[in-house]
Parts: sequence; C-alpha cells; structure tokens
Amino acid sequence: MSGNTYVKVLPKHGYVELEAFAGGDLSVVNSARVSFSKRSVGYTLSDSKLLRFLMRERHGTPFEHNHMRFRCRTPIFVFWDWKRHRIASYNVESARYVQMRPDYYIPEFARGQVGKPGDYKFVQLPDFQTKWLQSSLDEFCRDGISRYHYAVNIGIAKEQARLFLPMNFFVEFIFSVNARSLMNFLSLRNDSNAIYEIQEYAKALEGLWGRVMPDTAKAFIENGRVAP
Amino acid sequence: MSGNTYVKVLPKHGYVELEAFAGGDLSVVNSARVSFSKRSVGYTLSDSKLLRFLMRERHGTPFEHNHMRFRCRTPIFVFWDWKRHRIASYNVESARYVQMRPDYYIPEFARGQVGKPGDYKFVQLPDFQTKWLQSSLDEFCRDGISRYHYAVNIGIAKEQARLFLPMNFFVEFIFSVNARSLMNFLSLRNDSNAIYEIQEYAKALEGLWGRVMPDTAKAFIENGRVAP
Amino acid sequence: MSGNTYVKVLPKHGYVELEAFAGGDLSVVNSARVSFSKRSVGYTLSDSKLLRFLMRERHGTPFEHNHMRFRCRTPIFVFWDWKRHRIASYNVESARYVQMRPDYYIPEFARGQVGKPGDYKFVQLPDFQTKWLQSSLDEFCRDGISRYHYAVNIGIAKEQARLFLPMNFFVEFIFSVNARSLMNFLSLRNDSNAIYEIQEYAKALEGLWGRVMPDTAKAFIENGRVAP
Amino acid sequence: MSGNTYVKVLPKHGYVELEAFAGGDLSVVNSARVSFSKRSVGYTLSDSKLLRFLMRERHGTPFEHNHMRFRCRTPIFVFWDWKRHRIASYNVESARYVQMRPDYYIPEFARGQVGKPGDYKFVQLPDFQTKWLQSSLDEFCRDGISRYHYAVNIGIAKEQARLFLPMNFFVEFIFSVNARSLMNFLSLRNDSNAIYEIQEYAKALEGLWGRVMPDTAKAFIENGRVAP
Repeated sequence: MSGNTYVKVLPKHGYVELEAFAGGDLSVVNSARVSFSKRSVGYTLSDSKLLRFLMRERHGTPFEHNHMRFRCRTPIFVFWDWKRHRIASYNVESARYVQMRPDYYIPEFARGQVGKPGDYKFVQLPDFQTKWLQSSLDEFCRDGISRYHYAVNIGIAKEQARLFLPMNFFVEFIFSVNARSLMNFLSLRNDSNAIYEIQEYAKALEGLWGRVMPDTAKAFIENGRVAP
Repeated sequence: MSGNTYVKVLPKHGYVELEAFAGGDLSVVNSARVSFSKRSVGYTLSDSKLLRFLMRERHGTPFEHNHMRFRCRTPIFVFWDWKRHRIASYNVESARYVQMRPDYYIPEFARGQVGKPGDYKFVQLPDFQTKWLQSSLDEFCRDGISRYHYAVNIGIAKEQARLFLPMNFFVEFIFSVNARSLMNFLSLRNDSNAIYEIQEYAKALEGLWGRVMPDTAKAFIENGRVAP
Repeated sequence: MSGNTYVKVLPKHGYVELEAFAGGDLSVVNSARVSFSKRSVGYTLSDSKLLRFLMRERHGTPFEHNHMRFRCRTPIFVFWDWKRHRIASYNVESARYVQMRPDYYIPEFARGQVGKPGDYKFVQLPDFQTKWLQSSLDEFCRDGISRYHYAVNIGIAKEQARLFLPMNFFVEFIFSVNARSLMNFLSLRNDSNAIYEIQEYAKALEGLWGRVMPDTAKAFIENGRVAP
Repeated sequence: MSGNTYVKVLPKHGYVELEAFAGGDLSVVNSARVSFSKRSVGYTLSDSKLLRFLMRERHGTPFEHNHMRFRCRTPIFVFWDWKRHRIASYNVESARYVQMRPDYYIPEFARGQVGKPGDYKFVQLPDFQTKWLQSSLDEFCRDGISRYHYAVNIGIAKEQARLFLPMNFFVEFIFSVNARSLMNFLSLRNDSNAIYEIQEYAKALEGLWGRVMPDTAKAFIENGRVAP
C-alpha cells in the first residue's frame, strides 16, 4: 500500500482506514489460471484481458483470494445496514463494555422522500426543514447524553444506559472482506438507491480498494458495477 | 407442528412465532446414515444413540438438514446483536419504507454491572434506579416520538426522522435458520453472559425448537449446551 | 408436495428425490413484506408482481426463507463440481465406512470439445469413439472392481481400496438448499456451458423445485435465469 | 513471511506453499480491542493473555481478520474431503480444460481398518499387502493413463477422458482461509481420526501458519486444539 490509507467520511467523526491488505490484481488471474496449471509473474495485457473475461462472465471465485481489513467509524444506523453483508468479518465497539464517546452525526441537509417503495428518490429540502432537523436532533442528542451520564453515575449498567444514545451516535468497527464480497457491497451501497450516508462510506471503501486492486476496480466499473 | 407456535417475550410488544418448519430428529440421523447408505423410517432408540454420538463428537453437518422460519419482534438493540449470526437468513421491517409504530421497550428493572470485561455479572438495582430509568426512558421516548412525527409531517424522509427513535423501539423481522446454527446461537445467547433481553428471546426460540426437534434439543442440553 | 418427488437421471443408477420442503412462493413475498409490516394470507396477483420486482431488482434475501432437502445419487465427478456450491448443506456416502456398490456410469455418447477455454462447445462424436469409450471404460471399471474386492479381502482399509474406483462410480448424498442458492446453482449448472451430466441433474432439481415454488421458478425463467 | 514457505507433502508431487498472508497475532487482539476502542502497537504480554482468553472462551470473530493464501497439490481424494470446508475460497486445476499430468500417488504402506464406525483405528499392514497395493495401483494407473491418452488422441473431450484417471492422481489448487476457519480445519484434519494423507497436509498447513501467527498457533495447541 502506498500513500494515504485513511479517508474522512461525513462531518466530524467518520472515517475509513485500510489497515491491511493481501492479494491484488495478479492474485485474481493467477487463481483463475490454476485451472490451466499456469501462473504469471508480472501483470500483463493478457492478464488484464483475462480479468475482464472473468468479470463479464461472472466467474466470481478468483476474486476471493485477497483480503482487505478496514477500520471504520460510522453512525450506528450506517453499521445497522452494513452488517447485513454476511460474507465478511466484523468486530465492533461494545456499548456494553465501554462508555460511549459523546460523538454523534448531524446531517448537513434534511431530505425528502418522493416516489414509492422500490423507486424512491431523495431530494434536498429547504432551509427550514434542515435547520429544524439539525437543531432538534442536536437538542435530542444532548438530552440523551446527559441522561446517559446520569444513568452511568447512579450505577446503571452501560448496556441499559446506552438506550439514551440514538442511532446517529458513532461506533467503531473492524471490517475484513475479499474483493468479490466487497464488489457486491459496492454494487448495492455505492448506488443512488442506498441511504446517502452509507453511499459516502461505500465511495471511500471503493477508493481505497482501487489503490490496491486498480485493474479489478477499473474492470468492475467498465462492467456496469455488477459484482461477479 | 402441534400446539401453540407463538410465544410472547418481554413486556408488551415482543414475540417469537415459529412460522414454518421442515426436518426433525429423524432428518438428523438419516443424513448421518447416508454415510453408510442406510435410512430409518421411524425414530428408534438406536437413532437416539446415534444422535447423541453425533452431538458429542461434534459431527455438525447432519444437524443442518432442517429449517425453522421464525417471525420475531424485538427491541432494535436485541436485533443488533442477533444479526451478528451470519449463518441464517433475515428480512427486517424497514424504517425507511414504513412509519414506525410508537412501540418501545421499558426494562422492568434497572441493573448494575459488576466485575470486569469478560467476566461481568449483572445485578438488579434498587427501586430508586429502576424508577428513574423507567421514567427517564419513557420521557425520552415520548419526546422522540413527537419529534419523529413532526419531522415526518414537515416532509423529512423517514430514514432521517427515525434518528429520533432510540434502540429500545420494536422492530419486526423474519429469521430462518437450521438447527446447527441455532444451537450455536443458543449456546451464546441463552447464556448468563448474554444481555438479559436477548436471553429471553433465546429461551423462547429454544422452547419452540424443542417442540419440533425434541430429541435433538434434549441431547443438546445433555451435552452441556455445546453446539456440534 | 403433490405427485412424484423422485426423478431418474442418467442411465441406470442416478436419481434426485425431494425429501422435504418448507416455504413456497408465499414465503418470498411475506418475507419481503415484513419491510412494510405487512403479510398476505393467499397468493394473489399483486404478490406475483412483487415477486417479479424482487427477482428483477435482485433483492435476494426474501428468496432464502424456504428449504428443500434432496437425496441424490450421482457419479463422483458430478458431486465433485456440485459441492463447490458452499451455501448449502451436504452429507455424503463415505467410501471409508461402507463398501461401495459396484455401480458405475457409462456415457451414452462420446463427445468432442471444440473451441477454446471459456468458449468450448461439445459435439457428439461418431460411433467409433462412442463404442471405444463405452467398452474401454467398462473394462477399466470391471478391472477396478475386482482389484477393489481383492484389496478388501486381504484386509486393506476401504479408504485405500477405493482408489481402484474411478470417478464415474455412483455416490449418494443429501443436499439441503434454499431457493436463492439453488437459483445460483441452476444458473450455472442448467446451462449449456456446464458438464452434460450435471446439466441433467440440474434439470431434475429445477423440475422438482418448480412443483413446490411454481411462481418463483416461472419468474426465474422470465428473468433470463439470472439468480437474484 | 521469513524463511521457506514451501513444504513438500507425501512422496513425489505433493506440496503446500504459503503464497500470501495478512494479519498476524496483533490483528487478533486489536480486533478484539475495538470493543473497548483500544489498539496496541506492539505485541505484549498482556496481548498474549488476551489472546488466550479469547481462545479459551471461544470468542471466535477476532481470529477472522487475517488471511492466508496457499497453493497446494494433493491427490484428488484429499481435495475431495478438503473442499467440504465451506468457509474458505478455492480455485482448482480443471481436468476439463487442461490435459492432466501423469502424476499419481502410491501409498508407502497398506493399512488395515480395525474397530467400528466412529471409532476406527488404522494399522500398518505387513509387506504382502503393501507390495500388492503398490504394484496393483501402479499397474491400474499406468493402464488408466494409456487409455486417457488414447481417448484424447481420438478426439474425446478431456472431461470424459479423465474418467480413466483414478482419485490418487494429483490436482493443484488455491486455498484462501482465515485463522478461525483454518483452526476448525486443523482440529478435524490434523487429527488421528482423519485420513492419513490429509493429516499430512494439515500438519504442513499448521506449520506454515505457525510461522506467521506464532502465538495464535501456540494458544491453539495449549487449548487442546479446539477451534474458537
């Protein structure tokens, strides 16, 4: 990995960091080539063609022999959706064991929902709604924090006290995944139908992944962002 | 399935319902016996012995050829832990698509946390803490609901408005699982180290499962509740 | 399940049998509808439309809340490919524990392979090759069987003796799967690029599945046999 | 990775090679510590204690945030068992696409099977059986190879011709796995109940893994080789 592996996401506390990586574009084609008992040593033009063939024909397994480990910090509601992805490994900050940091997320804009289930569009709402949402949510969270601290102070278990912390509080977690599963994640979450905030994280993941598997990421885009 | 397949859990809104089932104790031993090209037609004493052998020696695969589909309603924080279990299928009520019902969970007792990480004990706290927790949480949730409704009324998308609903609100979901994965769930969640509320759900699941796979459930208990 | 649940596949010893089933078309739409806290009791035209929407938009999870358990008997080389499918449960006859039955598969036609990797076509070869293949394979298998029996007779462990039984011998196994994973299997194996013999099994599976989830099977075909 | 990452296994053609690795002992404890929002930079004695606690109490997820990619060559019957392990990634040499190398495995000793299902012991048999097994298997394989070549020469597809190659022929594959899944593999396959040949491969895997995650491997052994 060269260059910066840390990307800030959302205002203030959110981020994604690529902590470890193995594999790469070459691992994809060499895993496919084991079918023919062959192996490349450098990544050539014919490797690039093979990789596009695998992507297009949805031969998915060669894209599994690699590994990315990310450390992330997201609002709770973002991780709520994120961990629906089962072909991945997770460890997450526990509100049972640690006192939560008083860090929460305030959206930059209120948005409205138009259309019907399965075909929603989200539009930015005028200043009135945005201002109200921001101040009301801030007020609600501050109130929650003070109730949280009071609860902890009178000896209530953290696992009960945390009920005062809404789902826009930040949580930290480790996320390990291979490129095949990550492409499935990106096809669903770096997509205009996904919740705005998880889209922002998906973009960050996609950018970091593109640095370590550049030709795979390019072929994924060329293929219409359909996971193999 | 005979008898009632619906169990209330926690005060008011929580429940677990067994909606569908396939397999049974006989499917366990017949799946194991395919190794020997044999098959039983009725469940006999020698089947019961074989099942105990499989459980004890941790031959897990024969316990996978069955299926339970549950409909559940739990506080959000319970499902937060629940869906960490990846060898299962889930569909969940979406706070993006529907307006959430104003149903939330108030604990019957405040509890304190003694000991250290990995070895916590939870003890019931006196009336003072319990009363405070109940009334403060109730107040906080009512405040959240009225902000939630106001947000929806001024056109804010439900996915943003829901940030006013804390993690003790109820959510409904479908959970499909096989007995092997369920035993792993039960060994961790119907356990005194688990959060009290998820223990209650795990007990309900265990009871319903025990009606459809009675000898497997019995052998699981005899085996010290270690999943094969 | 109504009607026959047993289908013969390939000459002589092969078959697929649907032993157990849970779920159905209705379980698909009701699992999706939990997002909206709704539930159907009978399967209507609007359910059928919703199911097609889920299939087309690749909302895959609602197709997981069902279960098929098949008992199958296939040549070893067919199961070799079959068990590459990881989202399924398997138990298989063990050549370690039982003496294998002297049942093997002789292809009805020799086939030639034209084209190049990733784009092969298979063509039926003339009588000469077919006759030679059949008699040579028969001879080879008979020789293998007599060596196998001799090995067992002089006390050699079955796990070593089986090395005399080539991959066209039949093996029996239990296969449990849900419709989402089965559709992925069918899209790859009931496909002209797959090995002829596994295509035959995939057709049998697809036929049996179509009896218990008819509208899902229909929508799968209409959708170009792309798994959601 | 320092030192040799290639280990020969079985006579002649078998091997295991560790091609890529990410993670390490430190990734285990840092993944666990995210629960407490903490992170170590060097691996200390308290890390070692935490790792043993996680192993003993079967907190398995922190052992998933790492990656080993192995290239292996084994007899077909070894991979037959190997790929039953579903929490791993595989790509394998295809007897459809390439002409198989004429490399096969001859056991160094014939073995006998004493005891009953679930409790077999395997004993080395006298010279007579060993000599017979070796020469009979060699003869059978040579016969198979010449039929295989003849079949290919008269234009029969490789996928049919391979039926003349018994399950002691060697096959090459890529195997990617994390430590949690690998420990499960090792607990079952580096065990006296497993087939001798897969035990030999499991030992080689365990040795290579122990070089990159030494304290995890040590704790696994101290814990009686029970996977967390």
